Amino acid sequence: MRFGRIATPEGMTFCVIEGDGEQAIAKAINGHPFADPEYTGKEYPLSDVKLLAPMLPSKIVAIGRNYADHVAEVFKKSAESLPPTLFLKPPTAVVGPGAAIKIPEFATKVEFEGELALVIGRPCKNVKADDWRSVVRGYTIINDVSSRDLQFADGQWARAKGIDTFAPLGPWIETDLDAIDVTNLPIKAHLTHDGVTETKQDSNSNQMIMNLGEIIEFITASMTLLPGDIICTGSPAGTAPMSPGDYIEIEIPGIGRLGNPVEAA
Amino acid sequence: MRFGRIATPEGMTFCVIEGDGEQAIAKAINGHPFADPEYTGKEYPLSDVKLLAPMLPSKIVAIGRNYADHVAEVFKKSAESLPPTLFLKPPTAVVGPGAAIKIPEFATKVEFEGELALVIGRPCKNVKADDWRSVVRGYTIINDVSSRDLQFADGQWARAKGIDTFAPLGPWIETDLDAIDVTNLPIKAHLTHDGVTETKQDSNSNQMIMNLGEIIEFITASMTLLPGDIICTGSPAGTAPMSPGDYIEIEIPGIGRLGNPVEAA
Repeated sequence: MRFGRIATPEGMTFCVIEGDGEQAIAKAINGHPFADPEYTGKEYPLSDVKLLAPMLPSKIVAIGRNYADHVAEVFKKSAESLPPTLFLKPPTAVVGPGAAIKIPEFATKVEFEGELALVIGRPCKNVKADDWRSVVRGYTIINDVSSRDLQFADGQWARAKGIDTFAPLGPWIETDLDAIDVTNLPIKAHLTHDGVTETKQDSNSNQMIMNLGEIIEFITASMTLLPGDIICTGSPAGTAPMSPGDYIEIEIPGIGRLGNPVEAA
Repeated sequence: MRFGRIATPEGMTFCVIEGDGEQAIAKAINGHPFADPEYTGKEYPLSDVKLLAPMLPSKIVAIGRNYADHVAEVFKKSAESLPPTLFLKPPTAVVGPGAAIKIPEFATKVEFEGELALVIGRPCKNVKADDWRSVVRGYTIINDVSSRDLQFADGQWARAKGIDTFAPLGPWIETDLDAIDVTNLPIKAHLTHDGVTETKQDSNSNQMIMNLGEIIEFITASMTLLPGDIICTGSPAGTAPMSPGDYIEIEIPGIGRLGNPVEAA
């Protein structure tokens, strides 16, 4: 089932999205997408409403350096010498599908990072790796936008990855965990620059160093996770700079496509 | 005016705290402490209720390496070579006055860091340094508890400083910005170990590298701040390890004392 969040003439609401392409329908629900949906009866063609980020998380916990080829391209080192690490992105960085990524003047090398994201479904702490599915409500996509200049200048990544609009999220939450083989999931990023689209990232979740169970166990050994919290599972290689006028689309088959234009702030 | 948050037999509420010591009274208010208080008429001796963290922030933005002497003791480098940097602590790390700091087994060198904290009063972005007071609701104290082993092993500080209970906050929010000279404010940490209390941190906000205006301008150039967000302004030298059975108290005259026992998780 696909849960989304939409702006309609009557206000913002969570919804269930059925159908694809021009036939897609958003069926409004009461409350939050953490339980079986209770439909309000209101339905909209998806093309008539604005799709928002599917969740406003209380926190975004991210695993960095979780793909060896990305460690090599960004840090010029082996994954053995630089193992996965944990960082946070602020909730204020979240924007939805189609919203502009806005690059401030002082960020001079801003790159996309297409990633599989997990949406937490219940409060949890000290989750064992084998039990990770019991705390995950569904999958979505995040673009972990990163300003490489600030990332290396600051040492800490919070600013480089925490600028407003640097966490495009969506397009929705796919809750059918059985329908998607997360151990073998293509992850792609298509960058359109000067009217030409190139596929820059073309990898697979089978390249992850820590798998989803290990990630959830690692994080929850330290931090309580709350419903709606977002876990970013790391970016594969192929990240590249973006500039105002570009359009970046992250694609994960079975989940969807998350596209955002790039503008100057 | 001092705003706090308390647990009473009737539930949790924000309050105004008047008087000191055993005479202190908590006067319950409607709503949040971002405007003039609207009193409910309920009053409690402060000693009869449980003081909670005065705010549950949407984010905690911290300035690291903002005191040269602390940079020297932790990083063994000069502040010129390691300038201030920005990091995030997760909201789930917050606990209130008197709540235990719980050290997990895998954190083997956990230290206190006493810091002046700012509570943001209104949504803001791109605030100029001179205007910082217009976006700050008040002052409080944070203990930026940090596991030095994880801090250096991970490179990123999110885990070392983000473990549940690693952000004691309080005891309340002092909103009278004119009553406190934040350019010359003593900051102390008193550690009780084996029944002996030693003053480990004994510094002053006049040792900050970035002042409060520069901090607010720096952060809001990148991130929108929301009401209730907490800004940690950095720790002076004197941080030291804590172990289960210890009691750590951060003292900032004019604001108050934030004391927490230390336990094994």
